[in-house]
Amino acid sequence: MLSTMQDEPLSLATLLRYASTFVGDSTVSTWTGTGVRTMTYRELGADAARLANALRELGIGIGDRVGTFMWNNNEHMVAYIAAPAMGAVLHALNIRLFPEQLVYVANHAEDQVVLVDGTLLPMFAQYLPNLKTVRHVIVVNGDASTLSAPEGVKVHDYTELLAAQPDTYDFPIIDERSAAAMCYTSGTTGDPKGVVYSHRSNWLHAMQVCSPSSMGFSGADNVLAIVPLFHANAWGLPYAALMSGASLLMPDRFLQPGPLLEMMAAQQPTFAAAVPTIWGGMLAGLAAHPQDITHLRSVVVGGSAVPPSMMRAFEEKHGVRILHAWGMTETSPLGSVAHPPAGVTGEDEWAYRYTQGRFPASVQARLVADDGSVVPNDGASLGELEVRGPWITGSYYSPDGAEVDPEKFDDGWLRTGDVGKISRDGYLTLVDRSKDVIKSGGEWISSVDLENAVMGHPAVAEAAVIGVPDEKWDERPLVAIVLAEGAEAKADELRDFLADKFAKWQLPERWTFIAEVPKTSVGKFDKKRLRAQYADGDLTVTTLS
Amino acid sequence: MLSTMQDEPLSLATLLRYASTFVGDSTVSTWTGTGVRTMTYRELGADAARLANALRELGIGIGDRVGTFMWNNNEHMVAYIAAPAMGAVLHALNIRLFPEQLVYVANHAEDQVVLVDGTLLPMFAQYLPNLKTVRHVIVVNGDASTLSAPEGVKVHDYTELLAAQPDTYDFPIIDERSAAAMCYTSGTTGDPKGVVYSHRSNWLHAMQVCSPSSMGFSGADNVLAIVPLFHANAWGLPYAALMSGASLLMPDRFLQPGPLLEMMAAQQPTFAAAVPTIWGGMLAGLAAHPQDITHLRSVVVGGSAVPPSMMRAFEEKHGVRILHAWGMTETSPLGSVAHPPAGVTGEDEWAYRYTQGRFPASVQARLVADDGSVVPNDGASLGELEVRGPWITGSYYSPDGAEVDPEKFDDGWLRTGDVGKISRDGYLTLVDRSKDVIKSGGEWISSVDLENAVMGHPAVAEAAVIGVPDEKWDERPLVAIVLAEGAEAKADELRDFLADKFAKWQLPERWTFIAEVPKTSVGKFDKKRLRAQYADGDLTVTTLS
Repeated sequence: MLSTMQDEPLSLATLLRYASTFVGDSTVSTWTGTGVRTMTYRELGADAARLANALRELGIGIGDRVGTFMWNNNEHMVAYIAAPAMGAVLHALNIRLFPEQLVYVANHAEDQVVLVDGTLLPMFAQYLPNLKTVRHVIVVNGDASTLSAPEGVKVHDYTELLAAQPDTYDFPIIDERSAAAMCYTSGTTGDPKGVVYSHRSNWLHAMQVCSPSSMGFSGADNVLAIVPLFHANAWGLPYAALMSGASLLMPDRFLQPGPLLEMMAAQQPTFAAAVPTIWGGMLAGLAAHPQDITHLRSVVVGGSAVPPSMMRAFEEKHGVRILHAWGMTETSPLGSVAHPPAGVTGEDEWAYRYTQGRFPASVQARLVADDGSVVPNDGASLGELEVRGPWITGSYYSPDGAEVDPEKFDDGWLRTGDVGKISRDGYLTLVDRSKDVIKSGGEWISSVDLENAVMGHPAVAEAAVIGVPDEKWDERPLVAIVLAEGAEAKADELRDFLADKFAKWQLPERWTFIAEVPKTSVGKFDKKRLRAQYADGDLTVTTLS
Repeated sequence: MLSTMQDEPLSLATLLRYASTFVGDSTVSTWTGTGVRTMTYRELGADAARLANALRELGIGIGDRVGTFMWNNNEHMVAYIAAPAMGAVLHALNIRLFPEQLVYVANHAEDQVVLVDGTLLPMFAQYLPNLKTVRHVIVVNGDASTLSAPEGVKVHDYTELLAAQPDTYDFPIIDERSAAAMCYTSGTTGDPKGVVYSHRSNWLHAMQVCSPSSMGFSGADNVLAIVPLFHANAWGLPYAALMSGASLLMPDRFLQPGPLLEMMAAQQPTFAAAVPTIWGGMLAGLAAHPQDITHLRSVVVGGSAVPPSMMRAFEEKHGVRILHAWGMTETSPLGSVAHPPAGVTGEDEWAYRYTQGRFPASVQARLVADDGSVVPNDGASLGELEVRGPWITGSYYSPDGAEVDPEKFDDGWLRTGDVGKISRDGYLTLVDRSKDVIKSGGEWISSVDLENAVMGHPAVAEAAVIGVPDEKWDERPLVAIVLAEGAEAKADELRDFLADKFAKWQLPERWTFIAEVPKTSVGKFDKKRLRAQYADGDLTVTTLS
């Protein structure tokens, strides 16, 4: 039996029309270093129409990719909604990628046009000669004449381009499963992989961001989007703001703690979103120059795990509630958010808030063991987190139709590569990456848990734990220790230190003392190199009996 | 270009699985008159599985209609989610329909099985012989043996039926556009018309109910559902509660102000939903026996316009915020909700809160004039409200495929039959029903505005305004006045009383004095009968020059 409901597609063109009329008085503002440039959503709608007209004149049609190489600002928001609303596909390029990766993703996505911030022109100029599909560059807030373009590439000035266009556009309503935007993962191994969001997925995801179970946006909010628009679908902030009528505050290139705090003092945002590093910097800034930040009703932090000490410092010293969240480019990115259950208080509440949180109804989640069996949500059993749902990717983008990394998908579920446990009441706690977890006799040992525990010993500066082959148990942990300057500790002493924190079978026998833990370009432990050093026999290993 | 997102259907089976696991500790509770019967969502999931198994044994399959004839209680919630989750179609019968209407809708929907509350058995027993398609009656909380069933109808006891079944069921994921539930309009003219909600529409609508722009449900809520589950898709409360992990509080048959207030004192709900009549009764109850009701963070009122005095009394005397909302069976039912814009205070804020509110992004709205042109959202121009969107009906249910009332649909939009204006910032104010608005020389005059204004005269007890034919202006208003007991007033005096409240061309010339305004069975002004009396020459009309 079919329903009688209208078959109305979920469409970002509808969202743009709504935002620029029904909530047209809401605003997006960009910090200039001393104040803000503000446009209403009504003006945003007019500029989006001008940009769409201009892009059409440049030959952009349904499904063509429109790149951006920009800070978070008003003009970036115009592109963010104009491109998908006209049926094109927004591709916000990560300005922090290594040059070869940036060139790779722009070519892989076949970006036809790129909007570039004036301040980023020198950087972009280096990449441009290697961008094979780009035909037009639109310079925003800069001097277009300073860019020398290769043969066949035209350079335009954003303001001039828009000034020549009408402020209306007949934005088409296309199939809701059509591409709206794309984002590449910045995986540490292999080439970046593309994820293509749809109108449907972005609409549903924006509704979820608005839910109090996630970020709870409403027209009363002024949302500070520190997370870059190119990072993991901008955490859904732009479309959720347009949907709820929340206003947006954009930091542009002023991302240091000092300017961010100055902007917050002046603009009093009610909500903010950024990775832990930014909040760590803010805490230090606030310690040096105290400032009331209770205008923030809440702050969402994701991208990597938030240290509990940071959450407590924000709440206890500054009266601001940090929401811990989990997500990834492949999941749009929400994901779970750690709102504690009703009625839970004190340390119990904190324990819930330290978790990665609870999933919304639209994101199905399960934990899967090595043998493919689903493990129970009992708060103890570990498994790889798998998710599915209407805003979870089902594949990676492939221009030629060849499957990319099919092993990342398991019968309709996305394998996240994260290992964790889920409590009976649905809260996720991640303990490791699946490639780092140690599989010992059919049981899993979290390398991260061992690292955190042993780093609590005063003699230990840093510790990295990897799984190494073991004849009896398949794998056992090897602990690589960097001693604190001038400190001394033996392997057996360190193992004794762990004895009351782990089950006996989890305690490591193999220890090595090294000068430093190898690190990736972004400062994470490079366990791949550590494994190679072990395999090559470069490490001196003590084995306790 | 297609997206890489998973093609995961929106499904109430997924919702049930989520609610009974990830938020399985949340509860639904039913008031017993002295306390509550409570079940967790985990137990709700188990009972839903038992009911689904039982229904399958009774021959219910995908698309078959499962009727309910019940108060709001735990068992009704079990049926509300079990039936759609198993692919059947929930049809909550309005226990307050006239007998012939009840029989009509149950036969029209072809209900196969009906769950009936024990307390409603005597009433249902009268209808049962006329229900042509019902093969099974399941008696909930009552004595099944008291029901004498016609030939071919089997009577079952709910508790016994469920006890015999396993507590798991492999709920199928079906096409999201499949029917999930149906509801009939209780239109004052003609036969009731059926609206069939889909899994998709109910899912999206539940997400919207959870949004702070609508009701803002979260796991911290305890939602008192006074609005009957059979009324306009239960305003979306059941599925939104399951989605957000809000707990539900059900009043069962205890719908008088005294028991409702007693239940509220005991159960401290954070949110409640009901029509204005209920809240009016509560206000009177609170005046007689004061009680703290500030546990209610907010209350949503819809179904008919809320008197401003009631909104102010709740806020000023009891500290509870009333949310005015508009919707109809055809719109799932949300609809607009009157949250004022950020930063608006005092009387300006009240003015926004008296409106029917603002639409969410998923509900497109426009005002259309008689000639089919769209009128601007300028806060003044009147038009018939038309809406479209994924949870707006695109037709009425027709068992034989014949179109029902096609004139209610306009090129993909639903014609609501409501006439109003929309402000530049998107707030809807309804002024009349389209069949009652007076179309004078191409301009519209609100009959309701004239009625409300003239009823402000001390000599007037009641007034009803209808449009009557006029040679020059097509239509002009006729005011039918019921004088207050012992009072006297002439037509010209009453017109003078209106002179500073309306434009000169809107002032009525035609007046008639009557003993009482004819009323419908639910107490509304019956303008159809008034028009017939005028057409038949039964009214003595004074025409002022």
